[in-house]
Amino acid sequence: MTGRIEIADLPDIARGAAILGTGGGGDPYLGRLLAERVLRERGPVPLVAPASVPDDAVVVLTGIMGAPTVIVEKPPAGPEFRNALESLQAVLGRPVTHVACLEAGGLNSMTPIVTAAETGLPLIDGDGMGRAFPELQMVLPTLDGISTGPMAMSDEKGNAVVLRTVDNGWSERLARSATTDMGCSASIALYPMNGAQARAALVPGTLGLARRLGEVVRRCRERHSDAAVAIAAEMGGVVLFTGKVTDVERRTEGGFARGEATLLGLGADDGARLTLSFQNEHLLARRDGRVIASVPDLICVLDADTGEPVTTEAMRYGFRVVILGLPCHPRWRSAAGLALVGPRYFGYDHDFVPVEGLLAP
Amino acid sequence: MTGRIEIADLPDIARGAAILGTGGGGDPYLGRLLAERVLRERGPVPLVAPASVPDDAVVVLTGIMGAPTVIVEKPPAGPEFRNALESLQAVLGRPVTHVACLEAGGLNSMTPIVTAAETGLPLIDGDGMGRAFPELQMVLPTLDGISTGPMAMSDEKGNAVVLRTVDNGWSERLARSATTDMGCSASIALYPMNGAQARAALVPGTLGLARRLGEVVRRCRERHSDAAVAIAAEMGGVVLFTGKVTDVERRTEGGFARGEATLLGLGADDGARLTLSFQNEHLLARRDGRVIASVPDLICVLDADTGEPVTTEAMRYGFRVVILGLPCHPRWRSAAGLALVGPRYFGYDHDFVPVEGLLAP
Repeated sequence: MTGRIEIADLPDIARGAAILGTGGGGDPYLGRLLAERVLRERGPVPLVAPASVPDDAVVVLTGIMGAPTVIVEKPPAGPEFRNALESLQAVLGRPVTHVACLEAGGLNSMTPIVTAAETGLPLIDGDGMGRAFPELQMVLPTLDGISTGPMAMSDEKGNAVVLRTVDNGWSERLARSATTDMGCSASIALYPMNGAQARAALVPGTLGLARRLGEVVRRCRERHSDAAVAIAAEMGGVVLFTGKVTDVERRTEGGFARGEATLLGLGADDGARLTLSFQNEHLLARRDGRVIASVPDLICVLDADTGEPVTTEAMRYGFRVVILGLPCHPRWRSAAGLALVGPRYFGYDHDFVPVEGLLAP
Repeated sequence: MTGRIEIADLPDIARGAAILGTGGGGDPYLGRLLAERVLRERGPVPLVAPASVPDDAVVVLTGIMGAPTVIVEKPPAGPEFRNALESLQAVLGRPVTHVACLEAGGLNSMTPIVTAAETGLPLIDGDGMGRAFPELQMVLPTLDGISTGPMAMSDEKGNAVVLRTVDNGWSERLARSATTDMGCSASIALYPMNGAQARAALVPGTLGLARRLGEVVRRCRERHSDAAVAIAAEMGGVVLFTGKVTDVERRTEGGFARGEATLLGLGADDGARLTLSFQNEHLLARRDGRVIASVPDLICVLDADTGEPVTTEAMRYGFRVVILGLPCHPRWRSAAGLALVGPRYFGYDHDFVPVEGLLAP
């Protein structure tokens, strides 16, 4: 997807981004409203492919950091996006030339559109993860040795924090505390890099992919066909489970939304029980105690009737949902990738098995 | 005190600073060792009176932020002092010309000597409080509307944080969390101001005063005379209580050392009980339930035998101590001063009464 992002593109992008957000990344509807407002005021945002970014570009990743549960209650006000970028620019000492998405997921596929529109900068069609992950260091640029810092944070009150840390994990730690102080939500601008680094490290085409996925869901609804099956086919993934939410245990702790959801099977899955564990994003799916999908693969929850993605904070008792397992970007399946975002990092005592493999007979 | 600070000056300054530290500000012995090492390597530090600082000077206050209980166990390594100042200088975009003490108290009367020696800058004989207080916004520059920010923090690992906040209370809040993440101790450089602001806002002569108080204690010990009485006379304060520590309840929480100490009276105070409440520094002294001294006045604990100041983290069961009440800088007794550092700010339900008045018949 190149050219420009207009208001008419937003509904599909928001819907598709919520699928890539794997339950996290914040409420896409909120992000869509925010982006709509700014596009109405400032016009379309130029969108460029990573491959066209020149070597000497100054690329910055942006997004919102915090607990989605809180972000829903305290929507971003607007100026904090521009403030974070300008804080970073001031310490860089040179103008930022391109904005890109830190993550492809929900709200955070929309907030870089806001930053780009407000600063007049072009947006790169790509992101640092190819999905959403809960922690800052969980991006492909970390695998390339690119530093988070200098990293800028800004809240809606006007507070600004700049971090330069010894590694990207320390940025996550310090920024998470500051986010908690700021009310569990902050605008961030980080991973300043040149064009060559951006071309190598970013997952290309994620906004275009989000729009395509959103379009698939919309078309399926119009045709009364199965969106989950169509998404699985589009992404090379599998339908893991169909069931009804019977319990959601959720807590906001350490600046994250953490919890577990329990589902009882319907139809072909009648009698089975699925448990989803999440930290902002879904991390692990267990069917009757057996792990059937895990990070870094994408575990996505869709409304069984409408095909609309369901975020972890929107999940409620009684929801009938379909669970999809979609393969992650291949670099996440490397040893270094799994050390950064694999199930063991999150404290689960089992190795990663690709979602395709787990379902093979 | 002007001219320069040499190694021979350090023992008296450290001892006197621990008195002004009112139990907090960290272990002065540790600070003395740190300053000794750097003065041995780099020679004496030029010391200038606030009155001689030119209008166009760039003055920065420095110190260590954290819980004294932890700082004792994790002494500052050295480079973090210089790193904090240089981080701040980078965002200011112009060279810092003078260093001054954030607070006059224990370790934090010594750490600016280290910063000055390592950066080759002159040190101003003055500080922001005239004593030690537990929170960053508790300085006279706050009463003058001077901002903490931009404020820089640095840890011994090499992490750096820069804050620009909407008010000085927000700097305290964000910096306290970062300090906790950094291991409950961080080097800070803050309150950048010009020379005119420094002359108006800093308490002049605190390093000279610390040296004089330290000398009084040393001379009293040599002559076997009563140091507590001599200090009270020197400072226009009063001896509040003589007793034995019977209990110390202490906890490290929210990046502070908080707690209470209970003392039973000896000699003229036989039969009476004194309770000291502290948050890094002593905040309140209650004799048999009645408040006899409170912030912002100084409540100082001296060893009954040697006259040496006793920090809150060094207080132990069985210590025989003398409690002094010394008047604070007059600006702290204004309405604005008491709103910032009076007993009600710390949650105690009573008005401030000057230590001199409480003891009047």
